[in-house]
Amino acid sequence: MTEVRHGGDIYRNPVRLDYSVNCNPLGMPDPVKEALRSSVESWAVYPDRYCDELREKLAEKLEVKKEWILCGNGAAELIYDLVAAVRPRKARVPVPSFTEYEAALSRTGCAVFYEKTRKEERFRLDIGNYRKKISDDTDLVILCNPNNPNGFAVNEWDVRELADRCRKKGAVLLVDECFAELTEKPQQYSVISACGKYPNLVVLRAFTKTFAMAGLRLGYLVTSDRNLLEKIRRYRQPWNVSVPAQVAGIAAVSDVSEDYLKKSRELIAAERIYLTEKLAAMGFHVFPSAANYLLFESPVPELYEKCLKGGLLIRDCSDYQGLVGGFYRISVRTRRENEEMLEIIRKTLETYP
Amino acid sequence: MTEVRHGGDIYRNPVRLDYSVNCNPLGMPDPVKEALRSSVESWAVYPDRYCDELREKLAEKLEVKKEWILCGNGAAELIYDLVAAVRPRKARVPVPSFTEYEAALSRTGCAVFYEKTRKEERFRLDIGNYRKKISDDTDLVILCNPNNPNGFAVNEWDVRELADRCRKKGAVLLVDECFAELTEKPQQYSVISACGKYPNLVVLRAFTKTFAMAGLRLGYLVTSDRNLLEKIRRYRQPWNVSVPAQVAGIAAVSDVSEDYLKKSRELIAAERIYLTEKLAAMGFHVFPSAANYLLFESPVPELYEKCLKGGLLIRDCSDYQGLVGGFYRISVRTRRENEEMLEIIRKTLETYP
Repeated sequence: MTEVRHGGDIYRNPVRLDYSVNCNPLGMPDPVKEALRSSVESWAVYPDRYCDELREKLAEKLEVKKEWILCGNGAAELIYDLVAAVRPRKARVPVPSFTEYEAALSRTGCAVFYEKTRKEERFRLDIGNYRKKISDDTDLVILCNPNNPNGFAVNEWDVRELADRCRKKGAVLLVDECFAELTEKPQQYSVISACGKYPNLVVLRAFTKTFAMAGLRLGYLVTSDRNLLEKIRRYRQPWNVSVPAQVAGIAAVSDVSEDYLKKSRELIAAERIYLTEKLAAMGFHVFPSAANYLLFESPVPELYEKCLKGGLLIRDCSDYQGLVGGFYRISVRTRRENEEMLEIIRKTLETYP
Repeated sequence: MTEVRHGGDIYRNPVRLDYSVNCNPLGMPDPVKEALRSSVESWAVYPDRYCDELREKLAEKLEVKKEWILCGNGAAELIYDLVAAVRPRKARVPVPSFTEYEAALSRTGCAVFYEKTRKEERFRLDIGNYRKKISDDTDLVILCNPNNPNGFAVNEWDVRELADRCRKKGAVLLVDECFAELTEKPQQYSVISACGKYPNLVVLRAFTKTFAMAGLRLGYLVTSDRNLLEKIRRYRQPWNVSVPAQVAGIAAVSDVSEDYLKKSRELIAAERIYLTEKLAAMGFHVFPSAANYLLFESPVPELYEKCLKGGLLIRDCSDYQGLVGGFYRISVRTRRENEEMLEIIRKTLETYP
C-alpha cells in the first residue's frame, strides 16, 4: 500500500496559500467560533458517545429520523467504519475518486472493481453503464457526488436509480456527499431524502468542508438501515467524536444563518468560472466542475514543486488511481486569494518556461 | 456482544456529581484552556496527521525517540488500532480489567484467555503466574497498570520480566498506563524506559485522565517497534487526532508546571486514604488501590440507582468480566466533592436501610 499524498500538509511545507484542501472559503462561521471559545470548560468530561443533541438538530434540519444518523471523527473515519461493518467481498469504485475508499477497502481483502472514467470524456462517470455493471455478487458500490477530484456531479434522479439497482442486487450504496452542500443547488444532487425509500443507501456528509472546520473532525452517515448503524457503533471505540466537534456541529446546524451557505455557494459558483477562464487562458486544460474545486492538466511539468517554491500548495493528483503526473487540483477561494494564487502560478510559468 | 455501561454518561442522567470517571480532580490546567481559547481560528485547517510537534515535545519529556510515539483519538482508539494491526489469534487479558480490551479483541475472532483475579486476593494479579502462562502461541498479552477498576499496580521490575517472557515467546505486550501518572510514584510502575530494550513492549498513555481533558480525546502509544506503529498508521484514517487535541496536548506537555502533577498526586494519595476509611466505616468493603479510583463492594443492593436519585453517578462494575452485581467504582476527587459524595451515600443508606 503506497502512502497517499493528501492535500493540506501545511505542517511540513512552507505554505502561504493552501489550495490543496477544499474547505468553505468564507472560513469557520463566527457562531461556531464563539460556541467553541465559550465552552472550553466543558471539555474536561467525556463526550456524549451517542451525540444525541447534535443528531437531534441534524435530523430536524435534514428532515430524517434521528436514529438514521451516525456521527464520526471526520468523514474519513466513517468510510473505514462502514467498510469494516459491511465487510464487502466485491466493491465497485469509480476512478479517479477520493483515495480513502481504496485505502479502506484494501484493509479488508475485498476485490475492488474500478470504473475508470476517461480524460476524453472529461472524467464524467457514465452512470447508466456503472449501474448496469452492478451484479448479484456486488456487496458495496461507492459514488462520490460531486466527485473528488474533478467535481463532476450526478443528478439526484440518476443516483436514485443507482440505489434502486443496488437494492435489487443486494448491495450497499455509499454516496459521499461531502462536497454537495457547496454546489450551487445541493437539492439537485443530494439523495438524503431517498434514505427512507432505500435502506441500502448510505449518505456520507462532513462538517469539515461545508463549515471550514477540518481541524475539528466531524462527519456523519445517514441511512434508514438502523442495524447497519448499530453494527458500526458497536464495533468501534465508544468516544470517537470529541466534545469540541459536537459543540461546533451543534452551533453550525443551529446558529449559522442560511445566508452563510447561500453566500458561500454564490461566491464559489462565481469564482469557479473566474478561475476556469484564467487557468484556461494560461494554457491549462481545466475540467468542468460543480464543486468548490477544479481539476486541471498542466503542460508544465512539476507544477506542484514549482508552486510550492512560491508558497502555494496545490494538490498533485498523480497518486489518484486513473490519473498520472500532470494533473492537479485547486480549491475555489475568495477573489483576493484567487488573484494571489493565479499570480504565483503566472510567475511560476515565467520562471520555468 | 453486550453493550458496556461505561462511566461518564452525564448526558442521559440527572447528575450533580460524576464519580464514574477518573479524571484528574484538579481539572484541566489553565495553560491548556488558554491554548485552546486562543487557537480556535486555526481549527479550520486539517490537523497534522503525523502530530509532529506534539510527538517531539512528548519524546523530549518521556526521553524516548519521537519515532516511537503514535498519537490517537483517545487511548480507546489505540487499543482497537493495535489489536487490528497485531491481529492476534491468542490473547491473554486479566479480569476484571478495562472492558474495551475485550471489546476490541471480540471484533477480530481472537481466542481470549482470561486471567481471573479473585476477590479473596483483593483482585491482585499474580504476575508470576500470569507470566508463566505465556506460551509460544500467545500473540498478545495485556496488562492494565494500575489496573482498572481496582487500582492494583504491578512494580516496574515485574512488568519488565513479563515483557522479557513475552519477547521470548514472540508476543506483543500492551501495558496500559493510562492511570500511571496519577499514582504517587509513577516511576515505580511505568515501563516506558524499557521500550528500547523490549521492542515487543507497547505502552499506552492518555492525556484524558492525567490532564482532565476527556472531551478532547488524546492518547498515545510508545514502542520501539517502528514497523508496528507504521502498520497501525497506514491502516487507519489519516486525520484521527483533531487540531484542538494536538493544541491541548502540546500545552499540557510544554506549559503545565510539574507542580500541577505533584499537587494532583498528593491530593489523590491523601483523599484515597480518606475515602477508604470513610467508606469502610459505612460498611463497604473497599479494595486497596494505587490509583485515583477505588473499587468497593456494597452490601446494599442497587447502590448505583439509589445514588443516581441523589444526583451522584458512580460506576456500576457488574458488566466487568469477573465481577458481579454489588461492585462499584468511584473516583478520588477533592475533599469538598468527596464530602458531598459521601453525604449522598450516607443519605442513600438512611433512606434505603
